[in-house]
Amino acid sequence: MDSVIYGKNSVLEALIAGDREINKILISKNIHTDAKINRIKELAKQNGVIFQFVGKEKFEPYKEFNHQGIIANIAPIKYLDLETFLENNKKEYGSLVILDGIEDSHNLGAIIRTCVCAGVDGIIIPSRRNVLVNSTVEKTSAGAINHIPLIKVNSLINAIQVLKDNGWWIVSADASAKQNYYDIKYNDMSFALVMGAEHAGVSKSILKASDFVVKIPMENNFNSLNVSNAMSAIIFESVRQRKV
Amino acid sequence: MDSVIYGKNSVLEALIAGDREINKILISKNIHTDAKINRIKELAKQNGVIFQFVGKEKFEPYKEFNHQGIIANIAPIKYLDLETFLENNKKEYGSLVILDGIEDSHNLGAIIRTCVCAGVDGIIIPSRRNVLVNSTVEKTSAGAINHIPLIKVNSLINAIQVLKDNGWWIVSADASAKQNYYDIKYNDMSFALVMGAEHAGVSKSILKASDFVVKIPMENNFNSLNVSNAMSAIIFESVRQRKV
Repeated sequence: MDSVIYGKNSVLEALIAGDREINKILISKNIHTDAKINRIKELAKQNGVIFQFVGKEKFEPYKEFNHQGIIANIAPIKYLDLETFLENNKKEYGSLVILDGIEDSHNLGAIIRTCVCAGVDGIIIPSRRNVLVNSTVEKTSAGAINHIPLIKVNSLINAIQVLKDNGWWIVSADASAKQNYYDIKYNDMSFALVMGAEHAGVSKSILKASDFVVKIPMENNFNSLNVSNAMSAIIFESVRQRKV
Repeated sequence: MDSVIYGKNSVLEALIAGDREINKILISKNIHTDAKINRIKELAKQNGVIFQFVGKEKFEPYKEFNHQGIIANIAPIKYLDLETFLENNKKEYGSLVILDGIEDSHNLGAIIRTCVCAGVDGIIIPSRRNVLVNSTVEKTSAGAINHIPLIKVNSLINAIQVLKDNGWWIVSADASAKQNYYDIKYNDMSFALVMGAEHAGVSKSILKASDFVVKIPMENNFNSLNVSNAMSAIIFESVRQRKV
């Protein structure tokens, strides 16, 4: 079944990435044509993708989304399996983000965006107890979703064992950790950063299987960082260490 | 006029902070009573705040919000003025975040949360061209809004001049900056970090008035970091530098 993506950025990024078949683009007759819309039309023509100008009633089913008067029917995102990822990944020092029970679509979208910006090599998502890619995720990710492998696994704990067997180090974020996230060295290892659910955090079994458990030091006794913001702080610390 | 806050965390945090008058708490008869609801009832009793159990039809006007069956009428957030903030702030090295045209309520909520976690001393918001505190911001901030001064100013450029006159350094985030955000030293100055609008970035006049303009290095040519995630990376780098 096709997915629907909406918003100018999402449609444009999907056309640029070009790795998912786009079946049709619908553009509202009522929207103002700007540089992005023109670029979308141009790329659609080049790639033989049909686009149609339609009345705004066609957007009625999507009214709860911020669609900006443009939607596209697109082949669903292709998830990778972990073995294929590991075979294809030839980096000396890789980085992965593992999501353990993220429930909020906006958070998943923001995480995907930040991972692409920070050059993370892939995101591992469990097939259950975690939000999967939906229209909100596609939109919030601002098209980033087409620029990073999403790896779906049935068991996170098995995936972690496979990663460890392949020389990856597991770093889990947990509020009660002893080490701060900036106390470990990310620049001479391949690592997978595990981020937990908004409320429950990383599962106990995964914490136990981790090589490092790190926290973000909190001021004000207010321990309630949004998961994408927490991940951003940690992942960009690894970028900093690898660059300086 | 009163504000409405919704969700267990928001109501609980407002009771704990105790600096805004709560007029009434409405709890749905249909919700499951858990530790948070019990704590809310306990604190409400202690502080003489009325709470009522009501049918779910009372929540009909708030159905687009994730209210979890609990809302409260609360005095609107009090904004501070910059002069009062500067008089009260006695830290040797302070930190502020200045928002220049943030439009998205979820982003503002996440920024407030991260600022509280990182021990930022206050957030400066222009009275125009920026989202102000509304119910979505209150909810997304998970109550953080009660733990940090929000400073509303009529002119950002004037506020920046006042800050500079008081010995603060201005650090603006901009994608085309030459310096990386981790190349400057945050540990021996009071600084205000300016984050720009989701699309337009920091205004030209503010960039010109800044002491430092910094960027987050982007991989993959994908320059589209969510503003709260960008701020998180920079602000926690300042925390790291001040701690190590």
